[in-house]
Amino acid sequence: MSTRTRASRTSEQTANRNVKQMPSQNEDEMAIRALIEKWAKAVREQNREGIRVDHDSEILMFDVPPPLFSQGLDAYMATWTPFLSWSEKPVSFDFHDVKVTAGKDVAFATAIGHCAGRDARGKREELEFRLTMGLRKFDGRWRVMHEHHSVPAE
Amino acid sequence: MSTRTRASRTSEQTANRNVKQMPSQNEDEMAIRALIEKWAKAVREQNREGIRVDHDSEILMFDVPPPLFSQGLDAYMATWTPFLSWSEKPVSFDFHDVKVTAGKDVAFATAIGHCAGRDARGKREELEFRLTMGLRKFDGRWRVMHEHHSVPAE
Repeated sequence: MSTRTRASRTSEQTANRNVKQMPSQNEDEMAIRALIEKWAKAVREQNREGIRVDHDSEILMFDVPPPLFSQGLDAYMATWTPFLSWSEKPVSFDFHDVKVTAGKDVAFATAIGHCAGRDARGKREELEFRLTMGLRKFDGRWRVMHEHHSVPAE
Repeated sequence: MSTRTRASRTSEQTANRNVKQMPSQNEDEMAIRALIEKWAKAVREQNREGIRVDHDSEILMFDVPPPLFSQGLDAYMATWTPFLSWSEKPVSFDFHDVKVTAGKDVAFATAIGHCAGRDARGKREELEFRLTMGLRKFDGRWRVMHEHHSVPAE
């Protein structure tokens, strides 16, 4: 098989995948991107109600600092207190390389995040971290069921 | 509203969610649980072909050690070399609390993992880590698009 044939078959497969899923995928992908932006803005504004508004009561959080996991919205919200104490003000909490994979009612998203704060001795430290989100749509509305934030272990 | 009324409404909502999605969800959830078990077994057997067989060529890996991310199957497979060197033999690589959220063609899964190896001085160390997987179904078959492995930062 020539390179051209292989390339055009691959393009065709990609096109078929896109055509099949494009209508809802684009709309859902846009909704999830907007959700992530709104959530990150709420963190920057230290708006605790805004941070939790799109989160499920059963959310499973894997956060940068211990514990190993936090289950439920109260435990999730408790993780924001040490973060907001540590963070510089105004709060930095921004994402790039956001990729959303959305089906009809289940989706996941990945991104690289940036934040900054001061260590115990008051020295400024910047943090690049990885974010994965798992989402589910209930009654037409996407809700965050899972978040995984981490930095590579040194 | 009495506690009983609230409880029964909640049960009803849960039941409706389940009924709506049960037929394909159970089948897909079982397929993904089997995929994760098969993948973990391949790691324990140091079977590199088995580790990658259900993974997409574009897989995005957020691993425990640096780098921040690895994109593509070659980069993903390269992350297993240092892991398998560090790991005790026979290899420990087991999961518990596996939760799968599966739609028709997009899914994510979370789990707590356990592994063990020897540090530079030959001292045995055990590691509990968090796993998130993002999957997509192509032509009736689930494929891993994303993995996020991490330990809490100390």
